[in-house]
Amino acid sequence: MSDATIPKDADTVTLSLAELQTLALDVLRHHGVSDPHAQAMARVMVAGQRDACHSHGLFRLLMCVQSLRDGRVSRDAEPLVTQRSPVVVAVDAQAAFSPLAFEVGSRHLVEKVRACGMGALVINNCFHFSALWPEVEQLTEHGLCALAMTPAHACVAPAGGRSAVFGTNPLAFGWPRAGAHPYVFDFATSAVARGEIELYRRSGRALPPGWGLDEDGEPCADAATVLQRGAMQTFGGYKGSALASMIELMAGPLIGDLTSAQSLALDGRLGGAPHHGELILAFDPRFFSGRDPALDQAAAEALFAAITGQGARLPSQRRFEARAHSQIHGVQMARALHTDILALMQ
Amino acid sequence: MSDATIPKDADTVTLSLAELQTLALDVLRHHGVSDPHAQAMARVMVAGQRDACHSHGLFRLLMCVQSLRDGRVSRDAEPLVTQRSPVVVAVDAQAAFSPLAFEVGSRHLVEKVRACGMGALVINNCFHFSALWPEVEQLTEHGLCALAMTPAHACVAPAGGRSAVFGTNPLAFGWPRAGAHPYVFDFATSAVARGEIELYRRSGRALPPGWGLDEDGEPCADAATVLQRGAMQTFGGYKGSALASMIELMAGPLIGDLTSAQSLALDGRLGGAPHHGELILAFDPRFFSGRDPALDQAAAEALFAAITGQGARLPSQRRFEARAHSQIHGVQMARALHTDILALMQ
Repeated sequence: MSDATIPKDADTVTLSLAELQTLALDVLRHHGVSDPHAQAMARVMVAGQRDACHSHGLFRLLMCVQSLRDGRVSRDAEPLVTQRSPVVVAVDAQAAFSPLAFEVGSRHLVEKVRACGMGALVINNCFHFSALWPEVEQLTEHGLCALAMTPAHACVAPAGGRSAVFGTNPLAFGWPRAGAHPYVFDFATSAVARGEIELYRRSGRALPPGWGLDEDGEPCADAATVLQRGAMQTFGGYKGSALASMIELMAGPLIGDLTSAQSLALDGRLGGAPHHGELILAFDPRFFSGRDPALDQAAAEALFAAITGQGARLPSQRRFEARAHSQIHGVQMARALHTDILALMQ
Repeated sequence: MSDATIPKDADTVTLSLAELQTLALDVLRHHGVSDPHAQAMARVMVAGQRDACHSHGLFRLLMCVQSLRDGRVSRDAEPLVTQRSPVVVAVDAQAAFSPLAFEVGSRHLVEKVRACGMGALVINNCFHFSALWPEVEQLTEHGLCALAMTPAHACVAPAGGRSAVFGTNPLAFGWPRAGAHPYVFDFATSAVARGEIELYRRSGRALPPGWGLDEDGEPCADAATVLQRGAMQTFGGYKGSALASMIELMAGPLIGDLTSAQSLALDGRLGGAPHHGELILAFDPRFFSGRDPALDQAAAEALFAAITGQGARLPSQRRFEARAHSQIHGVQMARALHTDILALMQ
């Protein structure tokens, strides 16, 4: 959710959300992506741009087109759905990008959760470029509480170590609220996004403590060393490291898919979209609480009010504010990025 | 998991695990706790003492007896089981301590997960004093991956705030390993345990940065101020705070039970065992992975080997080492604690 891709005072272009969607679709279709995939991919990129999560906005078209040109990613594979149990559905993305697999699978997931109270959507064999918050947010629209997690390419050392084992391994959570935006968070279990360290490298700035290690496992302020020979660190010391390991296990071996180290080994480079799985869990409060749902909703709202009432922000507050602005005024995009995106169609 | 209750060079007594179990049972029975409850409670306290998690060892008898003397806790209520769906079971502890409710409920949980691939155990209306790792570890013995979470008494501020909203809200995770101890972690989402800050207060030492805030939300090194007028902090900044909020919501309003703020308001003091709910989730890998389980087990083992191979420790390594020692040599307990425990029977 960095603003880093929009340098201050830079020349920008303003696009409506409809124009953004058309632009993303045009690029993806130009590269032979089937309409269902292009629509699903464009939707999550436009959502990112709309909410000022620029690193997950149309910027991602550059990475996606690179992966398509490499020939590693399917342009048109249909997601293959397998019912594993009354509460577990698996979707094999067949080496395509993940958004369509999520859209197809989430319909089954919602049915299962509404029938049984909880359920899991396993996505296997996908290329992953998207943020997780659009997925959990979508599930909250069905009145469900949801969790999503995925590994990435290995670039993060475990606490007490020195070599990359984990990916940036994000965790997203969504909680439905009546008459308000859902309560949503989505954070990497690395101290910062890898792209953030890349920006420090480009500008030659020293990294803050806690972000990276050199090849000997010592704290390192040099971004290039961290990226090339060292490793990133998790947030929150050994606790953040434990959480990263949980995501690695649950969205890797549990679902029969690659760990971050395996994904990196398969790809061989850190630049491309990683190829692995994703796990989404959802819960219907009606099956979990034995009391009047209004009491539970009131307790959750009291919690949110206790947070905002003392001047702290809810995790997605800034994102929803950006959304409200974008829906009226459109979004500003750095002209250089816009030019790069248009060049993808030449 | 602090060693703080055993001062160095202190006079100690050595007890076998069987002697510890007998001691705990004697105390609980002396206070009229029914045999099923006493057995379940003693088992988790002995497990804590055995694994050198002294703050969750027989030390907890002091808090439990205080709560019993207060008349707030039931000595003999039978856990009331309700099947909420094919995958959700709820146990009303009826204002007794939680360990028996877990033992009764986990049998249903295991059946559900083996039949459907995943399941949830909701524990409501319990008094909570135990660590969560014994529970997830027990579920791994059935070949299941497990998560457990619970609120506590509110004493932790959200990131960017100044007033207590969250409890220490622990999260525990267990992963089964063939021929080895399971992979288990159990951490508070507060920066440290509340007892740790209490120890700093007693010794008059300054708190390290990141542990606590004063009443204005400013970083505070004075333990008494943090405990009496300020608030503890979460681990890992706004990400740890987000995780604490997830636990608050999932083990509170989702399951129709109290938040940490509600639990504290009900009790009125921070010293007693908190009265709230707990959520346990379990997953059977056979339903989640579409490939040969040996491949998934090998991938998980490769992950663990990549962590330990670079000199980092697995989260429960120290605990399992302490267990191996205790099983042969028994455990050492500070004589002062032993005396205090014996005095509970006078």
